[in-house]
Amino acid sequence: MLQKTKRLTLVEQVALQIEGLIESGQWAVGMRIPAESELMADLNVSRNTLREAIRALTHAGLLKTRQGDGTYVCSSSALGAVLQKRIVRTDTMDTLEVRHALEREGAFLAAQRRTEDEARELLLHFERWETAAKLGDLDAYVTEDIRLHQMILQASHNNILIELYDHIVEALHDSIASLTRSEVKPMFIEIHRQLVEGVVAQDSNQAVAAVQRYILESKTFISIEEGDRS
Amino acid sequence: MLQKTKRLTLVEQVALQIEGLIESGQWAVGMRIPAESELMADLNVSRNTLREAIRALTHAGLLKTRQGDGTYVCSSSALGAVLQKRIVRTDTMDTLEVRHALEREGAFLAAQRRTEDEARELLLHFERWETAAKLGDLDAYVTEDIRLHQMILQASHNNILIELYDHIVEALHDSIASLTRSEVKPMFIEIHRQLVEGVVAQDSNQAVAAVQRYILESKTFISIEEGDRS
Repeated sequence: MLQKTKRLTLVEQVALQIEGLIESGQWAVGMRIPAESELMADLNVSRNTLREAIRALTHAGLLKTRQGDGTYVCSSSALGAVLQKRIVRTDTMDTLEVRHALEREGAFLAAQRRTEDEARELLLHFERWETAAKLGDLDAYVTEDIRLHQMILQASHNNILIELYDHIVEALHDSIASLTRSEVKPMFIEIHRQLVEGVVAQDSNQAVAAVQRYILESKTFISIEEGDRS
Repeated sequence: MLQKTKRLTLVEQVALQIEGLIESGQWAVGMRIPAESELMADLNVSRNTLREAIRALTHAGLLKTRQGDGTYVCSSSALGAVLQKRIVRTDTMDTLEVRHALEREGAFLAAQRRTEDEARELLLHFERWETAAKLGDLDAYVTEDIRLHQMILQASHNNILIELYDHIVEALHDSIASLTRSEVKPMFIEIHRQLVEGVVAQDSNQAVAAVQRYILESKTFISIEEGDRS
C-alpha cells in the first residue's frame, strides 16, 4: 500500500513539474514536447511514470497526443484549459456578460492603478486600434481590439482578473471575430477613446461609463444579429 | 502504437464518466468513492485502467487519496478545483475584486431576469439574513450572506457567471468569515436591503448602486484591518 502511494506521488511530481514548464511559457502552446527518452533522462523517471504524468496532463487539457505524431502543448494553464472546455458548452451571450463584468472591473481598477508607462503604451496602442478600425481591416481590428482590452486589464494589476480575462478572451476569439463582420461604427470608436482617455486621466467614472456604453451597443448589435438569423 | 492509443482512450472514457458523476452531484463532495472491485465491475475495466483514471482525476483536483483510507471526492467540478488551486496563490483583495465584479453583473442581470418565485424567495431569505446580522450570530450570518448573494447570482440565469461565482465563493469562505469578525453595521444592512429591493423591483440601477456601495464599504474595512495588522 505504501509503495503504491509513493508511485502516485512520483507521477504527481512529474506532472506538476511539466505543468510548471507550460504555465511559465517555457513550453509554449503549439509546441511538440521533447521525446520520451529525453524526458525520462532529464526527469530521472521510468517510462511508465512519465506516461502516466502525461496522461494526467492530457486529461487536464494541457497536452494533446496526436496518433503516430507526438504530444503537443494545447493550453497554457490548467485554468485556461478548463475554462475553455466549460465555455464551449456555454451560450455566447452568457460568456459575453462575464467578459463585460471583468472589463468593467478592469477599467475601474486600471484608472486607479495604471503606471505612467502603461498610460503611454495604451495611448500608442489606441492609435493602432483606431487605424485598423477606420481602414476596415477586420482581421487586424479583432487582434488589436483583444490586445487593447488585455492592456487595460493588465493595468488593473489584479492577477486573477487578468488570468480569467485572458482565458475567456482566448476561448472567445472566434465569436469576437464573428461579431465584427460589418464595419466599425464611428460611435464605437468614440466610446473606446473615452475608455482609454478615462484610464489615462485616472478617471474611473469616465472609464466605467465607457464600458457600460459599449456593452449596451454590443448587446443591441447581437440582438439585431440574432433577429436577422431567425 | 495503436494499442497504446486505445488504452489511453479507455482511461479517458473512465475519467470522463467519473467526472460526470462528480459534476452532476451523484458523487458529492466529501464522499468516499466505492471500492475498486465494485467500480471495476460497474465500469467493466481492469484495475490498471481504473487506477490511471483516478490518478488523472486526483491531479485535476477532483479526488484525493488518503493513505490507507480510501479515495474521496474533494471538489464538485474541474473548474472549481482549478480555481481553488489558483485562488490559494492569490491575494485576498484581488479575489475580492473579482467576486465584486461578478456580483455587480449578477445584480444587474438579476434585476432584469428574476422570476416571481425568485423574487419571493429572495425577500424571504433576506429576512433570515437580517435576523442573523442583527443577532450578531456571525457563523449563521456568513452562511446566510453567501447564500443571499448566490441567490441573486442564480436569478441572473447566466450559468457561467453562476459557476464562476460559486467556486470563487467556495474558495473564499474562510476569508469571508474572517472579514466578519466584528458586528454587522446597520448601514451595511440598509445597503443589502437596497440591493434585494432593487432586484425585486426590477430596478437594475438601484441594485448595481447598492453593490457599488458595499464594495466601497468592504474595501475601506479591509484597508483599516490591514492597517491594524501592520
